Amino acid sequence: MDTLDLNSDLGESFGRWVLGDDEAVLGLVTSANVACGFHAGDPTTLRRTCAAAAARGVVVGAQVGYRDLAGFGRRFIDVAPDELADDVVYQIGALDGMCHVAGTAVRYVKPHGALYNAIVHHEEQAAAVVAAVRDYSTDLPVLGLPGSAFLRAAEKAGLRAVPEFFVDRAYTREGTLVSRREAGAVLHDPDDVSARVLRLVTDGVVTAIDGSDVTVRAESACVHGDSPGAVDMARAVRSCLEKAGVVLEPFA
Amino acid sequence: MDTLDLNSDLGESFGRWVLGDDEAVLGLVTSANVACGFHAGDPTTLRRTCAAAAARGVVVGAQVGYRDLAGFGRRFIDVAPDELADDVVYQIGALDGMCHVAGTAVRYVKPHGALYNAIVHHEEQAAAVVAAVRDYSTDLPVLGLPGSAFLRAAEKAGLRAVPEFFVDRAYTREGTLVSRREAGAVLHDPDDVSARVLRLVTDGVVTAIDGSDVTVRAESACVHGDSPGAVDMARAVRSCLEKAGVVLEPFA
Amino acid sequence: MDTLDLNSDLGESFGRWVLGDDEAVLGLVTSANVACGFHAGDPTTLRRTCAAAAARGVVVGAQVGYRDLAGFGRRFIDVAPDELADDVVYQIGALDGMCHVAGTAVRYVKPHGALYNAIVHHEEQAAAVVAAVRDYSTDLPVLGLPGSAFLRAAEKAGLRAVPEFFVDRAYTREGTLVSRREAGAVLHDPDDVSARVLRLVTDGVVTAIDGSDVTVRAESACVHGDSPGAVDMARAVRSCLEKAGVVLEPFA
Amino acid sequence: MDTLDLNSDLGESFGRWVLGDDEAVLGLVTSANVACGFHAGDPTTLRRTCAAAAARGVVVGAQVGYRDLAGFGRRFIDVAPDELADDVVYQIGALDGMCHVAGTAVRYVKPHGALYNAIVHHEEQAAAVVAAVRDYSTDLPVLGLPGSAFLRAAEKAGLRAVPEFFVDRAYTREGTLVSRREAGAVLHDPDDVSARVLRLVTDGVVTAIDGSDVTVRAESACVHGDSPGAVDMARAVRSCLEKAGVVLEPFA
Repeated sequence: MDTLDLNSDLGESFGRWVLGDDEAVLGLVTSANVACGFHAGDPTTLRRTCAAAAARGVVVGAQVGYRDLAGFGRRFIDVAPDELADDVVYQIGALDGMCHVAGTAVRYVKPHGALYNAIVHHEEQAAAVVAAVRDYSTDLPVLGLPGSAFLRAAEKAGLRAVPEFFVDRAYTREGTLVSRREAGAVLHDPDDVSARVLRLVTDGVVTAIDGSDVTVRAESACVHGDSPGAVDMARAVRSCLEKAGVVLEPFA
Repeated sequence: MDTLDLNSDLGESFGRWVLGDDEAVLGLVTSANVACGFHAGDPTTLRRTCAAAAARGVVVGAQVGYRDLAGFGRRFIDVAPDELADDVVYQIGALDGMCHVAGTAVRYVKPHGALYNAIVHHEEQAAAVVAAVRDYSTDLPVLGLPGSAFLRAAEKAGLRAVPEFFVDRAYTREGTLVSRREAGAVLHDPDDVSARVLRLVTDGVVTAIDGSDVTVRAESACVHGDSPGAVDMARAVRSCLEKAGVVLEPFA
Repeated sequence: MDTLDLNSDLGESFGRWVLGDDEAVLGLVTSANVACGFHAGDPTTLRRTCAAAAARGVVVGAQVGYRDLAGFGRRFIDVAPDELADDVVYQIGALDGMCHVAGTAVRYVKPHGALYNAIVHHEEQAAAVVAAVRDYSTDLPVLGLPGSAFLRAAEKAGLRAVPEFFVDRAYTREGTLVSRREAGAVLHDPDDVSARVLRLVTDGVVTAIDGSDVTVRAESACVHGDSPGAVDMARAVRSCLEKAGVVLEPFA
Repeated sequence: MDTLDLNSDLGESFGRWVLGDDEAVLGLVTSANVACGFHAGDPTTLRRTCAAAAARGVVVGAQVGYRDLAGFGRRFIDVAPDELADDVVYQIGALDGMCHVAGTAVRYVKPHGALYNAIVHHEEQAAAVVAAVRDYSTDLPVLGLPGSAFLRAAEKAGLRAVPEFFVDRAYTREGTLVSRREAGAVLHDPDDVSARVLRLVTDGVVTAIDGSDVTVRAESACVHGDSPGAVDMARAVRSCLEKAGVVLEPFA
């Protein structure tokens, strides 16, 4: 029987500013990438999110990012690798503390935003994130883009490297993401998106933007929760998979 | 044989800004109150400080404070108790993460600056800090002012409450600190200060500002390291105690 | 003919986090209290808000606050008066810069959140804010609570002190605000609220929580815009006043 | 008669953390690049520095940088140009406010650290800084590296573009700076350095790292003040120039 993990970014509110519908998303996903305070997530939000995840049996991962509240971690920062590694350890530790008092623990690590994108190619920063995770615990898997420098470095370091699929993004025939700058890069129809994810799980292939079939290896699928439309799409994906008998369970 | 712990604030640099001579102080104390990033301490400084403490056998405590880099945690902030508790857990977790990769662990908690002073009397904030420590681990002692609401709440909650002595501060005949606003509140002569600490250890008494003897119970003595003069005083205290056969060892 | 100013807090988004419907509110008020970056408001939000205000003929005031993004400026901070004054000058200057490139200028100052509340009674901080405004420009009026230490200090310093009315708050028979902790402190019905404001403008009196009439002197009325319900209430108030022939115009 | 401006970075303390000997440096330079709070500089430091500069007749410039206290503005951040422009306006306005209450005004703009380096080549960020300055005031000159994209864009926009010379940096035969990674890139001898500056002023040439003479056009020379050695070097340079009859005066 086929299985899949569904992951989503959570805990991204900050003080007075609320972002996303964490409660709704926690009812749909199996893994929660919880912010760690550097790009988003005040301690009270983090504790509440971790407790809610624990109550629903959703696994918590540390969504580590650049130290940049004003930019929401979406701007590349040329941090020295040693400092980046320390920033990542700090964030994992902080979230692990919040998890601990909420009755759970950090079970994986997924970089956020510009850091996620940078370490697709930036070898030094990729190595820094991997070194931080490995120093913290060799038992923590990392979640990232298939074929990225990050996942390669993680595997080399003996970490479990988990590739993910983006449910609402178009893929090239080479199996990479179509750039957001190109037309058709982002998919909007919940039914189309659901059918794609189901095909990925059952057949291991996705229809690329040029109509060809491309093989994609993924153990988790990333859904969004930062708008009502995003929650609806996540709900459609989950529902479609469940009807097809796919078992939704955490990868970690 | 008499024993005493010497503690000092460390890890209070931030990025480009260096504060204190951590290396020198680590050679003198038995317990390091390491900042946690909210009032001071970037992750790289914290990791380095924890590693240096571990290498010298100095025990690490989490020096938790208000979220206030601009004020260095020295300004009272009227944080809601629940949020304060979450802030404290976050800080302990973050430092514990840095300790973990540096081969040690957080072994106690000491509030910093305005938070330290507030919870001498502020029952709600005192209870919040205690709740945070207890939720994180009931095995973590807390270090504070003798007679404070904080130590009382900690004892009630089943935590080990460790009273400390300020080597360079004058005491009233009631055993409380003379306010910094009064003349003679701060002592400057290393020999005087050393003799006071020795008398505290051997006799359990201190000469109060009015000349009377006052009983003070303390398991740790706090020394400073943020100026060359402060390091010299810490060195004098340690040397005096060692010559008198006092065993300097961590309380935790 | 009767006139009134309507003021509201604006520009309180920060990076990815959006707060309030600034466009809608700018269509209803005559004065915009624009955040200055210390409790909320990134530079891009500020510039856009100032430009939109200028385009609609809405006057801009500097909504200065404590340096506390995590607490949204809603927590009292025991800042030293000299430092508070400098923080206030910095904020006014920054917003004036944004106004300047947006074709307008800071025309008044209104403290925000916990600072607003603190300087109702806190003489030193009230004096610090007044000193900052006066040092920046003696031509800037300040907006505050009638009877507050802040407005008294402002008048003494030769600044124009403008008292404001809260449209959705209950008043005591002494003309002070009923504490939010008490039942009935906040009013929710747009029609009731509109009728109160109209009576204040035409008769200078408000019905207090105990049913008695109380005289309230106010040159501006504060409306909110941080929720759809708040915008609806502001719209109702404006509509009611316009129908009654009250001229809505900036106090500054 | 020959003239030269001497500029230096000032106002880079932050709260408890003191950096540099601003008083000493203000006695030596003619232009002070004062931090604006984004990479360094709390409001109280800024006001004090601006007042001290005004008292000594030293001209104040806005030393604008990336929003990055933890990195001291020394890490490239891929900020969107529009947001960078707004960040720059905010900083100029804030410092201008501090200058205003200190009896002076911002008279020029000099980017700091990683931003300074980025806009040597990064056309979009260079254009953004130029647009910000121009929107704020077309009367403000900018200080930068000779031959940089920044100075080119500034000239095109009608701003006065002032090239500067680094007194302690080696130059290539093409007149560019030798990279810090190469041996001999930084000069340490105060006498050598002074002689170089004097030759630059009198002859317009510098001895390049390969021994050849290279023509360098500069209206200002940058000296450092963040260490006792740096202050000594600045003093030597000033003294040498004064003995030679060079008039030290602000370029702005």
